[in-house]
Amino acid sequence: MADPSSCPLLTPASVRAAYEKIKPYIHKTPLITSTALDAIASSPDPSVYLSENPPPFHNVPTNGVEQGNDSQGSDDVPKFKLWFKCENFQKIGAFKARGAFHAVTRLIEELGVEEVRRRGVVTHSSGNHAQALSLAAHTFSIPAYIVMPTISTPSKIAGTRLYTNNVIFSGSTSQEREAVVADVIKEKNAILVPPYDHPDIILGQGTAGLEMETQFQEARYGQTGGRVQWKGERKEIGFDAVIAPLGGGGLLGGTATFFSNKYSTLVFGAEPSFQGGDDGRRGLLEGKRIEHVKTLTIADGLRTPVGVTNWSIISDKTKVEGLYAVTEEQIKMALRLVFERMKVVVEPSGCVGLAVVLFNKDFRDMVVRKQKETGKKEWDIGVVFSGGNTTMKALSQLFAEEKKTEAREREQGKIGLDGTRKVEDVAG
Amino acid sequence: MADPSSCPLLTPASVRAAYEKIKPYIHKTPLITSTALDAIASSPDPSVYLSENPPPFHNVPTNGVEQGNDSQGSDDVPKFKLWFKCENFQKIGAFKARGAFHAVTRLIEELGVEEVRRRGVVTHSSGNHAQALSLAAHTFSIPAYIVMPTISTPSKIAGTRLYTNNVIFSGSTSQEREAVVADVIKEKNAILVPPYDHPDIILGQGTAGLEMETQFQEARYGQTGGRVQWKGERKEIGFDAVIAPLGGGGLLGGTATFFSNKYSTLVFGAEPSFQGGDDGRRGLLEGKRIEHVKTLTIADGLRTPVGVTNWSIISDKTKVEGLYAVTEEQIKMALRLVFERMKVVVEPSGCVGLAVVLFNKDFRDMVVRKQKETGKKEWDIGVVFSGGNTTMKALSQLFAEEKKTEAREREQGKIGLDGTRKVEDVAG
Repeated sequence: MADPSSCPLLTPASVRAAYEKIKPYIHKTPLITSTALDAIASSPDPSVYLSENPPPFHNVPTNGVEQGNDSQGSDDVPKFKLWFKCENFQKIGAFKARGAFHAVTRLIEELGVEEVRRRGVVTHSSGNHAQALSLAAHTFSIPAYIVMPTISTPSKIAGTRLYTNNVIFSGSTSQEREAVVADVIKEKNAILVPPYDHPDIILGQGTAGLEMETQFQEARYGQTGGRVQWKGERKEIGFDAVIAPLGGGGLLGGTATFFSNKYSTLVFGAEPSFQGGDDGRRGLLEGKRIEHVKTLTIADGLRTPVGVTNWSIISDKTKVEGLYAVTEEQIKMALRLVFERMKVVVEPSGCVGLAVVLFNKDFRDMVVRKQKETGKKEWDIGVVFSGGNTTMKALSQLFAEEKKTEAREREQGKIGLDGTRKVEDVAG
Repeated sequence: MADPSSCPLLTPASVRAAYEKIKPYIHKTPLITSTALDAIASSPDPSVYLSENPPPFHNVPTNGVEQGNDSQGSDDVPKFKLWFKCENFQKIGAFKARGAFHAVTRLIEELGVEEVRRRGVVTHSSGNHAQALSLAAHTFSIPAYIVMPTISTPSKIAGTRLYTNNVIFSGSTSQEREAVVADVIKEKNAILVPPYDHPDIILGQGTAGLEMETQFQEARYGQTGGRVQWKGERKEIGFDAVIAPLGGGGLLGGTATFFSNKYSTLVFGAEPSFQGGDDGRRGLLEGKRIEHVKTLTIADGLRTPVGVTNWSIISDKTKVEGLYAVTEEQIKMALRLVFERMKVVVEPSGCVGLAVVLFNKDFRDMVVRKQKETGKKEWDIGVVFSGGNTTMKALSQLFAEEKKTEAREREQGKIGLDGTRKVEDVAG
């Protein structure tokens, strides 16, 4: 990988520069809206819309024009207009293509394509980064060596093999994987491209933020950039808030970097709370990065601890306003709403941002408070759907298991009436 | 309903007129493409991409430019560029909104809005037409009386109640439902809006065809309408073929009506074969409309026989080139590919067109033959995804059951190695 010391600074301008490099190779994924999800998110208890007999919306669209939410009443209910950035429609099905293409184009720029082709790139990953790096390398005829545990699911191995013949197996511990990577580096002089903790990766992922802001401005104001008159002040046009999933931190770190000079756009991160998967949130409470996480959350893309460089961004209150965590049940409820109401497939990891908006009480109370303070009636919030790589089989099992265990757990009081699972507090 | 004798003629011009009426009220749904699905459809055996360890594509995109399919070899493999019309993203989740808005705006035009408001509209439906009509009526403050069997699933009743308070229950036989409808008509003088067998409905559904053609022309040629030079001839720009699901026939009839003066665009219909659900195809073989169908196909929107008016269109060879049927397994395979590769939710009924393109041998052989005859290497084919109204629970059950019964049926020889279920011939 390019030496971090020679990398561009983590600034909005660097995200723009990254975008110019990767634009020809990635999809400009759509930014979509949903009247149904807006109504659900802006109702006092979104979980009622998961029942078999959901209540009607108060803001049914008529004559192609939405009615206001005002009739819905209480001041203590946050109001949202949701803008979903569909990175589930990105190449290889996840935002990871952005970082991988940026890392590879930067290597070519620094070392020349011949040297990169001679040496190749290497990483260890069993997930979306493996596919993303092999695609990016394949695009420039660069060999990609991907170290995967032998126990990886066949579909993920097959997905990676679509673009590279060099899948190398290892044991499943991180020591075993890293030993194999070290061998490849020694033998081939291959260049390591880590999955998230590197400036080039972070800047690449940040282009999702850049792209969604431009799309939002065009959709909402019919112009890119500029200012509007708002409550007697000239205000830069943009989102009121953006929320993205936090795993290793590449996506959230890059997004926060891009929005770091947009004072009117607050950036939030979303994590799974299961078995301590909310290491970012817990780290902020403890005042230091948590280095080890061991969780089997269904949000399998978010099981890793936050990386070192990413931590420096995420723990900077001027860049990231706050982190919020959701339970497994809340993630599944969000996934079902996206599936049934929007007809879109998002993987569990990709739904945690929406799950926070819909179900996290602290988050919703904070929004109500800020909406009162600023007199703003509704937030335009950008919600990143980070990926869609799941299978019918995996989702069927996820929701079939729920049916079996739900009744029992409800009896045992593990699931509240609002459908939220009560997990033990694993912080620490 | 407007007296058919006073209705516009079933012509492309009438579809255009219908579109002008309903345009303010419906979504312009996206026309999307998928490199992965193109590669799968253009491979010798698309079913191999359903396995846990699918082979790589031959036409992996590089540098943002697709490589040709030529390396894939055989002349006996059809080649497709697929253009998916996403009516699953339409209001109420299905194309039915088009016909319902057209029927209602036509009634207002003929009788005046006061009279329609005084009388109200009535239909019997437990499916998408019920929701579509209640939404259309609600939009113009017209009462909608929807007769539904008491045994309807709660979610469908709830969906209809989003827009009307007048859900009236009946027994589940068609006689019982029709008796209740007759009562409503007698009591309220309400106007019947049938689900598919009426010119206004047919013309409304046909606007899906109009819209997708315009979107295709813009995406493919950067212009709407006009001609291009092709093999020494001036050729009207447009799809080579379009395929839509066939149930009652409103969607296919309307689509075929719109394309009836586009000689270079062939229109095909797709049906489920399970328990004789392919009544259109069987009717063509017998030379007469089949009036009764009793099938429990998973494509539950396609269980009805073709309507009388629709039959006159569909049995006209100058309008519909042919009808093809697929098995339950083939529908499920298509659904899974759309879900896993495109990250889009389509209900089983909405997938039958794609299932034909991927898995129907007669259809694929016919395409190969026509591609050889015309020297055209690849077809631009418009595939209508007609709706997306399913639930996570329903799909989980559908695919969980499959897992249980699959192995057994494979042993018993009921499922071939290609995954197709061998059903008894129920024609007659």
